[in-house]
Amino acid sequence: MSEQPAEALARRARQAARELALVSADQRHRAIAAIAAALRAASADILAANAADLAAARREGLAPAMIDRLTLTPQGLEAMAHSLDEIRDQSDPVGEIISRSVRPSGLVVERVRVPIGVVFIIFESRPNVITDAAALCLKSANASILRGGKEALGSNRALYAAIRSGLATAGLSPDTVQLVDTTDYAFVEALLRQDRWIDLVIPRGGERLIRAVVEHTAIPVIKHYKGVCHVYIDEFADLDQAVEIALNAKCQRPATCNAMETLLVHRAHAGPFLKALLERFAARGVEIRGCPRVQALFPAAKPATEDDWAAEYLDLILAVRVTDNLEEAIDHIARYGSNHTDAIVTQDAERAEMFIRAVDSSSVMVNASTRFADGGLYGLGAEVGISTDKLHARGPMGAADLTTYKYVVRGSGQIRS
Amino acid sequence: MSEQPAEALARRARQAARELALVSADQRHRAIAAIAAALRAASADILAANAADLAAARREGLAPAMIDRLTLTPQGLEAMAHSLDEIRDQSDPVGEIISRSVRPSGLVVERVRVPIGVVFIIFESRPNVITDAAALCLKSANASILRGGKEALGSNRALYAAIRSGLATAGLSPDTVQLVDTTDYAFVEALLRQDRWIDLVIPRGGERLIRAVVEHTAIPVIKHYKGVCHVYIDEFADLDQAVEIALNAKCQRPATCNAMETLLVHRAHAGPFLKALLERFAARGVEIRGCPRVQALFPAAKPATEDDWAAEYLDLILAVRVTDNLEEAIDHIARYGSNHTDAIVTQDAERAEMFIRAVDSSSVMVNASTRFADGGLYGLGAEVGISTDKLHARGPMGAADLTTYKYVVRGSGQIRS
Repeated sequence: MSEQPAEALARRARQAARELALVSADQRHRAIAAIAAALRAASADILAANAADLAAARREGLAPAMIDRLTLTPQGLEAMAHSLDEIRDQSDPVGEIISRSVRPSGLVVERVRVPIGVVFIIFESRPNVITDAAALCLKSANASILRGGKEALGSNRALYAAIRSGLATAGLSPDTVQLVDTTDYAFVEALLRQDRWIDLVIPRGGERLIRAVVEHTAIPVIKHYKGVCHVYIDEFADLDQAVEIALNAKCQRPATCNAMETLLVHRAHAGPFLKALLERFAARGVEIRGCPRVQALFPAAKPATEDDWAAEYLDLILAVRVTDNLEEAIDHIARYGSNHTDAIVTQDAERAEMFIRAVDSSSVMVNASTRFADGGLYGLGAEVGISTDKLHARGPMGAADLTTYKYVVRGSGQIRS
Repeated sequence: MSEQPAEALARRARQAARELALVSADQRHRAIAAIAAALRAASADILAANAADLAAARREGLAPAMIDRLTLTPQGLEAMAHSLDEIRDQSDPVGEIISRSVRPSGLVVERVRVPIGVVFIIFESRPNVITDAAALCLKSANASILRGGKEALGSNRALYAAIRSGLATAGLSPDTVQLVDTTDYAFVEALLRQDRWIDLVIPRGGERLIRAVVEHTAIPVIKHYKGVCHVYIDEFADLDQAVEIALNAKCQRPATCNAMETLLVHRAHAGPFLKALLERFAARGVEIRGCPRVQALFPAAKPATEDDWAAEYLDLILAVRVTDNLEEAIDHIARYGSNHTDAIVTQDAERAEMFIRAVDSSSVMVNASTRFADGGLYGLGAEVGISTDKLHARGPMGAADLTTYKYVVRGSGQIRS
C-alpha cells in the first residue's frame, strides 16, 4: 500500500512528541485524570460498542478464550479507570536526575531521564491495553500510536474517544495518542517502515505476531516471546509451601505467560511426597509429562520429550523432572527456559542466593508463586508489557521503562585542550 | 564458511559468562589489576609487535590517519594500563539494588543490576580499545568476544597475551575474554549469526562497518552512526566564550565524532562578530559553507546545500547558518542533526533550559565545547563506545551501561488468589 498515510501519521506523532517534551508534568497528569473521567462518563457508550464487537465475534465463531479477553464489564471498565488513577499518582519519571558529578574541568555533568519519543504499541484483543498504554506513554511524555486487534475495533474506537476527549480537556494535541483506525494489516507494515519517526515498537501478543513484527522493521522492538517458567523444589524446601506454590503456579490461571510449565524436584523428594503432589495435579485435571523417574513413581505420566522441556503449554499440562541437585536444576533452566520467571522453594538462604545469581531470568523468585510476575503486583501501577529481552527493559515494564536519558552538561566557557 | 568454529567460540563465551556471574567483585578486580601488570611487564613485546604491524601498514600504503591510530607508544601503553587502574577503582555495578519495595502481599521485590551475558565488540584500528573493552566487560561481569582491525592483528595478539595472563593470575577461565584471531571477515559474519549465545554486539568504527553489522545480525546492536554536532550562538551569548567554544569544537580535533560540523548563529550576531569569527576559522584553514546570509557577509563561503547541513565532515569544513531565533536553531538540529552532541552558548538560563529540553541528543551542552562528550571526561573511567541509539544506553557507555537488571522476589510461601 502507499506509504503516505502511515508516514503522515508517524510524522504527526513525532511532532506531538516534540511538543510533549516541553509540557509540564502537571499538564500530563491532568490529561490522564481527564481520560479517567471521560472513561467513567462514557461507560454506557463503551459497553454498547463492546457488546456489538462481542456479537460479531460470536457470529464469526471466535474461540471462548478470545471472547473472554474481549469482554468488558462495568467492573472491568472501572478497574481500567482506577488503573489510570494509579498511574497518574505515581512519581513522575521525566526529568529525574539519575546521576550528577562535577568534573575536574568544572563542567557539571548530569544524566537526566527523558522520554524516548514515539512508541508504537501493537496489541491483540484485550481492550484494557489501550488506556493503560496511552496513560503510561503520557506519564513518560511519549507520543503513542496504538493498534489493537481487529475484533476489538469498535470497543477501541469508543475507548479512544474518551482518550481524545481527555487530551482536549488538558490542552494536548490529539496526535499525542493516535489510534490506528483500520483493520488493514498493510497499514501496520507501512508503519513498521517509519524508522525515521518511530523510536520503539512494543508488540503484545502471541509469538507469531511478535516474530512478524521483528522481521518487518528496523525500529527497535522490545518483545516477549514466551514464558517457560519453572518451579524448583529444593532438597531443603518447606514441603507444605512447595505444594501450594506448585499448584498455584500451574493452576490458578494456566493460560498466562507467568504460569509454571515445568516442575523440577530434588531427588530427596522423589518419593511419596512427589507422588502425592502429582496426584493432586491430576485431580485438578493436569496432564503430567515426566522424566523416567517421574514415570516410575506415577505411571499415568506420559514420557516427556525434548519438546516438552521447552514447551509453553499455556494449558493444564505440566512437565516434571527429578534432578540430582541444585546445579542440575539450574542447568535445566539455562538450557530449556525462556528467561521469563523461575522460582526456587527452599529454606536454605545460601542455596536461594545461588539460584538467584545463577538463573538468568527477568524475575527470579524464592518461596513464591511465579504468578506474581506482574507490573501491577510489583508496584509499577500497570504494565505496557513484560520484556524477556535483556536490553533496555526487562520483566514487567512501567512508565519509567518507557524513558531514556540524556547527558546535560553545563559549563562556563570550557574548551578542551 | 562452516558455522562450527564460530558457534563453538560463542558457546564457550556463554559458559564463561555463566561462571562469571558467580565470581566475586574482588576476583574480577584482581583480574583487571593483573592485566594492567601484565601490560606493563610485556611492554617491549607489545611495542615490537606494533612496530611490525606499522611496518606492514606502511608497505601497504595505509593512510597517515590510519597509521596514526594504529601507533602505540610507551606513553600510550602506560595510558592504557592507567585506564585499567581507573576502571578497577570505580564502584562495582554488579549486584547494585536499583530499587526495593515490600508489596502488600509481603513479597520483597528488588530490581538488581546484573551482567548482560556475552558481549561481542568489533572495532577498527586503535589497539587501546582491546584492553578498555576487556576491562569494562570484566567490571560488568560480561564475557567478551573482541575482534579488532586486520592491520592491528599482531598488536592485538600481543595485547591479548597480557589479557590471558591476567585472567590466569586471577583464576578466571580463558574464555572470559576471547580474541577473534583471524582476519577472515566470514568468521565475523558467522559470529553475528550466534544470537542464541551472544546477547549484544557493539560495533565501533565507521558508518559502513556499523550498517554491515546491523544488516547481518538478529543480535541487539548498540550503535553510533555519526556525529553531526552543532554549536548555536544565542542572542544572549557571551561572545568571547562563543568564539573560543566554536573554534575549539571545530579545530581541536576535527576527525572525532564530537567535533562541531554546523555552526548556528542568531541573527543579532550576523554582522561584524560573525564576519570576524569566520575569518578566524579561515585563518585556521577551515572551509566555510554557508546559508545566503553567511555568504553575503563572508564572500569566500561556498553555498551550503541540503547535503552540507546533514554532513559529518570529520575534516576542516564547517557549515554555517544564521537563524532568526532559538526555535529555528532547535528545528534545524531536529531536522539535520544525528542526536549525538549539541551545544548552546548563552547567558540566559531560561533559553538554556529550553534548548536542553527541546534538543533530543545524547549530550546537550551549555557554554562548553562539544569535544567534551567523552566517557573518560564524564567520569566513566573509559568508554566502550558512544551510543546514538535511544534504547538501553545513550551517549558514552561505561561499565554500568553493560549491565541489565533482574527482578528478585523473596517470599514466604505466597500464592496468588
